[in-house]
Amino acid sequence: MKKIDLVEAIILAKKSKGLSWESIAAELGASTVWVTSACLGMNSMSKEPAQKLCALLNLPDAAMASLMEYPTKTWDQSIPQDPLIYRLYEVVGVYGETLKEVIQEKFGDGIMSAIDFSLEVDKEENPKGDRVVVTMNGKFLPYKAW
Amino acid sequence: MKKIDLVEAIILAKKSKGLSWESIAAELGASTVWVTSACLGMNSMSKEPAQKLCALLNLPDAAMASLMEYPTKTWDQSIPQDPLIYRLYEVVGVYGETLKEVIQEKFGDGIMSAIDFSLEVDKEENPKGDRVVVTMNGKFLPYKAW
Amino acid sequence: MKKIDLVEAIILAKKSKGLSWESIAAELGASTVWVTSACLGMNSMSKEPAQKLCALLNLPDAAMASLMEYPTKTWDQSIPQDPLIYRLYEVVGVYGETLKEVIQEKFGDGIMSAIDFSLEVDKEENPKGDRVVVTMNGKFLPYKAW
Amino acid sequence: MKKIDLVEAIILAKKSKGLSWESIAAELGASTVWVTSACLGMNSMSKEPAQKLCALLNLPDAAMASLMEYPTKTWDQSIPQDPLIYRLYEVVGVYGETLKEVIQEKFGDGIMSAIDFSLEVDKEENPKGDRVVVTMNGKFLPYKAW
Amino acid sequence: MKKIDLVEAIILAKKSKGLSWESIAAELGASTVWVTSACLGMNSMSKEPAQKLCALLNLPDAAMASLMEYPTKTWDQSIPQDPLIYRLYEVVGVYGETLKEVIQEKFGDGIMSAIDFSLEVDKEENPKGDRVVVTMNGKFLPYKAW
Amino acid sequence: MKKIDLVEAIILAKKSKGLSWESIAAELGASTVWVTSACLGMNSMSKEPAQKLCALLNLPDAAMASLMEYPTKTWDQSIPQDPLIYRLYEVVGVYGETLKEVIQEKFGDGIMSAIDFSLEVDKEENPKGDRVVVTMNGKFLPYKAW
Amino acid sequence: MKKIDLVEAIILAKKSKGLSWESIAAELGASTVWVTSACLGMNSMSKEPAQKLCALLNLPDAAMASLMEYPTKTWDQSIPQDPLIYRLYEVVGVYGETLKEVIQEKFGDGIMSAIDFSLEVDKEENPKGDRVVVTMNGKFLPYKAW
Amino acid sequence: MKKIDLVEAIILAKKSKGLSWESIAAELGASTVWVTSACLGMNSMSKEPAQKLCALLNLPDAAMASLMEYPTKTWDQSIPQDPLIYRLYEVVGVYGETLKEVIQEKFGDGIMSAIDFSLEVDKEENPKGDRVVVTMNGKFLPYKAW
Amino acid sequence: MKKIDLVEAIILAKKSKGLSWESIAAELGASTVWVTSACLGMNSMSKEPAQKLCALLNLPDAAMASLMEYPTKTWDQSIPQDPLIYRLYEVVGVYGETLKEVIQEKFGDGIMSAIDFSLEVDKEENPKGDRVVVTMNGKFLPYKAW
Amino acid sequence: MKKIDLVEAIILAKKSKGLSWESIAAELGASTVWVTSACLGMNSMSKEPAQKLCALLNLPDAAMASLMEYPTKTWDQSIPQDPLIYRLYEVVGVYGETLKEVIQEKFGDGIMSAIDFSLEVDKEENPKGDRVVVTMNGKFLPYKAW
Repeated sequence: MKKIDLVEAIILAKKSKGLSWESIAAELGASTVWVTSACLGMNSMSKEPAQKLCALLNLPDAAMASLMEYPTKTWDQSIPQDPLIYRLYEVVGVYGETLKEVIQEKFGDGIMSAIDFSLEVDKEENPKGDRVVVTMNGKFLPYKAW
Repeated sequence: MKKIDLVEAIILAKKSKGLSWESIAAELGASTVWVTSACLGMNSMSKEPAQKLCALLNLPDAAMASLMEYPTKTWDQSIPQDPLIYRLYEVVGVYGETLKEVIQEKFGDGIMSAIDFSLEVDKEENPKGDRVVVTMNGKFLPYKAW
Repeated sequence: MKKIDLVEAIILAKKSKGLSWESIAAELGASTVWVTSACLGMNSMSKEPAQKLCALLNLPDAAMASLMEYPTKTWDQSIPQDPLIYRLYEVVGVYGETLKEVIQEKFGDGIMSAIDFSLEVDKEENPKGDRVVVTMNGKFLPYKAW
Repeated sequence: MKKIDLVEAIILAKKSKGLSWESIAAELGASTVWVTSACLGMNSMSKEPAQKLCALLNLPDAAMASLMEYPTKTWDQSIPQDPLIYRLYEVVGVYGETLKEVIQEKFGDGIMSAIDFSLEVDKEENPKGDRVVVTMNGKFLPYKAW
Repeated sequence: MKKIDLVEAIILAKKSKGLSWESIAAELGASTVWVTSACLGMNSMSKEPAQKLCALLNLPDAAMASLMEYPTKTWDQSIPQDPLIYRLYEVVGVYGETLKEVIQEKFGDGIMSAIDFSLEVDKEENPKGDRVVVTMNGKFLPYKAW
Repeated sequence: MKKIDLVEAIILAKKSKGLSWESIAAELGASTVWVTSACLGMNSMSKEPAQKLCALLNLPDAAMASLMEYPTKTWDQSIPQDPLIYRLYEVVGVYGETLKEVIQEKFGDGIMSAIDFSLEVDKEENPKGDRVVVTMNGKFLPYKAW
Repeated sequence: MKKIDLVEAIILAKKSKGLSWESIAAELGASTVWVTSACLGMNSMSKEPAQKLCALLNLPDAAMASLMEYPTKTWDQSIPQDPLIYRLYEVVGVYGETLKEVIQEKFGDGIMSAIDFSLEVDKEENPKGDRVVVTMNGKFLPYKAW
Repeated sequence: MKKIDLVEAIILAKKSKGLSWESIAAELGASTVWVTSACLGMNSMSKEPAQKLCALLNLPDAAMASLMEYPTKTWDQSIPQDPLIYRLYEVVGVYGETLKEVIQEKFGDGIMSAIDFSLEVDKEENPKGDRVVVTMNGKFLPYKAW
Repeated sequence: MKKIDLVEAIILAKKSKGLSWESIAAELGASTVWVTSACLGMNSMSKEPAQKLCALLNLPDAAMASLMEYPTKTWDQSIPQDPLIYRLYEVVGVYGETLKEVIQEKFGDGIMSAIDFSLEVDKEENPKGDRVVVTMNGKFLPYKAW
Repeated sequence: MKKIDLVEAIILAKKSKGLSWESIAAELGASTVWVTSACLGMNSMSKEPAQKLCALLNLPDAAMASLMEYPTKTWDQSIPQDPLIYRLYEVVGVYGETLKEVIQEKFGDGIMSAIDFSLEVDKEENPKGDRVVVTMNGKFLPYKAW
């Protein structure tokens, strides 16, 4: 079962059972963002969460191996178009050099890892309009001479 | 004074005075990320912080107007190359659809604003290696019929 | 039912019933542009207009959920080619900086939202040739310091 | 005097005299958008408004001919990056096919001219936040057989 | 019947009947270039020529509506590769600025319409090798202030 | 003297003498389009017209050799943006396959040369608006087996 | 039969009969490169070689017309990736300007035709490693004034 | 002395002395194409030809080292525009797969080297128009398992 | 059997038999990287390893010829996106000029062949985290005059 | 002193003193590749090697700070053109998926770091032609759930 078919099967099962990503993640005992990304084929699952997911969604047998397969991570649009995703791209464009200045001032010459990394989404209630809070947390990796 | 010359003047003054972005921001009573972005020409300042910055860095007279000018926000590379900035781009690529799923599940059909928006960088100390924490906070803007 | 199949079903039904976008919109009590965009998969409908549309066009059961689904908004051509759409792109190219100058002079540093936004098309009769009038109406979103 | 130098001279003179595009346009008896576009090098002026502008801003002699020169209209970014201009591009992407459907339903097979064309910006005051109103008005040009 | 299927049906019928574009155009009483472009899905036909074409080629019933549908005009290659078409692109590249100079000198500031437009191909016999003559005829559209 | 400096010198001299491309061409006894293209650096001149042009415009001595130099023909924008030039590009896009069909039906398998080639611009007066007539004339080059 | 299906049929027949391009070309009495290019859909055949090829490979009836059809010559990658083809592209990049200098010094202002053109591949045996010899032979086409 | 300045110096000296590439190459006892490419900065010279060239053209002292420097070989246009160079690119596009078939049939799996490589231009006189003959000669490099 | 189908068949057989690339390579007596690349369609096999592979994986008869076929080597993304592959691309970007300097200092003007080339992957155990060691070994090819 | 000026100063000093990258690196007690990359502006130096380099090359005072500055790592060509660097890019294209398969089979789901990373170049003498050996050594970074 290819990742692309796995994703389609998961989305269909999720809809027909009326589940949310949040409730699926709670069932698996993991973060909503990480579980969603694995269900969209952008991360591999270890055995335990994969088994729980297959049981919860009654996925076909082949889904188990597919969930555990190491994905090839790609995206269609080098400049994303959907407004929600474009705004994130725009933030990288507008604030990229700023983040480089501030992170390297705080940590030295190096980068924030996108691999040893986690990501959360929270809702901040606000009478003028609720706010989306996205938190990235990545290990600092220093450059070293050799 | 053009923004590009302003930025060069600020960076030179900052170096010669041995100041950090954090200390400049503290002096202005504003966030480090926002102050840095304005100093790099990606945001305009209102009168008060602009005056404080000019005084702190002994900037030439023309700097005042330039700091308050509304910038044209552009960036050179549609796919950034510097590893620190590329990792942020990669996060948008790998997790863009996931964030769309999770945000729209929590908030409904709409987006996180990149205009009514703030951004912070924190250091999380960790014996296995310190971690960079980047927090985006943007107003949720719902789509509406008309 | 995927959005792409929904759109095809709507267009077929519209043709076979000989309806116009304008008459469909009137039936739904909403703007022609918004109704057309939702029928082309670029906006989600709330329950009431979705029900009316399904009834009006005798759409299959699965169409209801598909109409209410939050769309991923994308387009094929970063530079559009169809002459009607290209002319709109050309207007953005030729007048983009002008609009930035004029809007920011009138409103301060910020942008016109494309989310809290509406769009209308009108016909202005004219003996030298009728004229197309396209009106965009978006909330002004000011940049703020933090 | 090249257009690019003309534009720089106009912007400097406008700043030093503390004029707005709106007041300059009023002086010339023409639309703010059109006057701004000509001052940014995207339209040519006929003799009368060019003379008025030169007088109002004390432009050098060579400016007169440059204002009247037919411009080559180009823009740097095929996908604009500044958030204000990008939002206009996004509107073309999201609503381009919708506008084609609606305009051709109202007018027949053809396009809205971007040459026999005018553009206005208005402010709509609104307690929930003022709104930007952009109006495009172009002649309908029908396709014909030959 | 989609335009793409219409085009395939026309080409098959044309081959099996051994007709040329020229003879089809003569039958319809219209220009060869225009008829060919409509048969390739790049122009819509009005009722009369569509009926004649359907009769001449014994096209299926659905072809009639498809011929009359307003096409979305697109092409696959922003820089064409087939040598015959590339040479036309090269002419635009090599002579584009020249044509702008000469047309605007003759007509004033404005453009040649590609909508109110016709195109012919002729053969000029020549002992050193026959010559292709391509004639474009488009209405001049002047820019105007507003 | 580089071509780019030659072109600037010619344009300045042409303006200061108040000459048109048409009158310059008449003086040289050659076509307006060809003369303009050579003056814009897109064709080389043989000795006689180069001498006439230098005399007519009082060009510096180095201009003579530069006019006779074989140019490297390039253009900045693979998709042109100026509306006048874009419309020509659009014609190639919309009618490219049509022209291939019609030319190859008339002449056999081959192309229209863009080298053994000439180009003219004419004005067709018309009460509904004058029309631009652009005529391309190129030798047919047949493909041959070997 | 479309060219793409023709090519597939030829390649299958060639394999099953164990023929080489060289032997096919010998049978047709034409150059290996030209025959191969026609078999790959990049040139049209006249009647005689098409008949021989159909007989030799037992191609289906529809192949005859398809071989004689004028092809649309396109390629997938504007910068080729296969190492053998990339090296040819690299030669054009590294030696393109050199070839322009040397050809135009030898022949005057003009180009080497890629239409009135032939191409050969030879093997030069060499104890240090055999060498590939590729020979292009194209008519010189001079630019002319008009 | 940078390669770019070296090239300019060589071209100026060549013009002022009225030399051809062919005569320079003869003086150096090397191929015209190779000498021209080194003079255009696309190959490095060993000591002897560099000395001869400096003497022949009276180049400044710094030219010697610059001629012997290993160049970075780059070109501006991934798809060349000058018609002479484009035709070579077109040949790679149209005949690239054909050459792969024919070369690999003759030599096995591998490529023609563009490094252990030479290139010649010859003139073939012909009453119907002289012909350009370009000959590439590169070592065959076989792929091997490991 | 096309390469693309061959690759799919190999991957399925490898999974169902629970084999690793390393064990397959050991069976064939060749390097893991080379065997994997041939199984992914990026190298051709000679008869012996192809027979062993077909036997080991019970591949269908047609696989034999397909494994021995000379592949067209292409990749989908000119800038790779999967983080593992992107990091390799980044190394070429960041260290490309450095490698040119160091290799040409050690070897003279020339390149490292990517054809007469081998590649290995090793694991270096390390208490702070194991390390990936990738070794490229290519013949030095010197540029030569001609 | 900007990095770009630093690099130019280093290269000039290196040439005038007749030093090699290898000897400079030996003097600094660090790897040739790393030292070269820092001298080309692609890595920052800590105080000690920076002082040694300044002394060795008699660099101006401002060089010290510039050497220690954290660089923005960018490159001009997303697809490199110089043959030496292109071959490395080609290796990533041809073997990228293979390396992903082999590395992830050996190490699990994760990547090779390009930050906690070193790179060496060695010469392997060989009677059939010396060979270039490039060794990359990067920490394996595993993906983890959260």
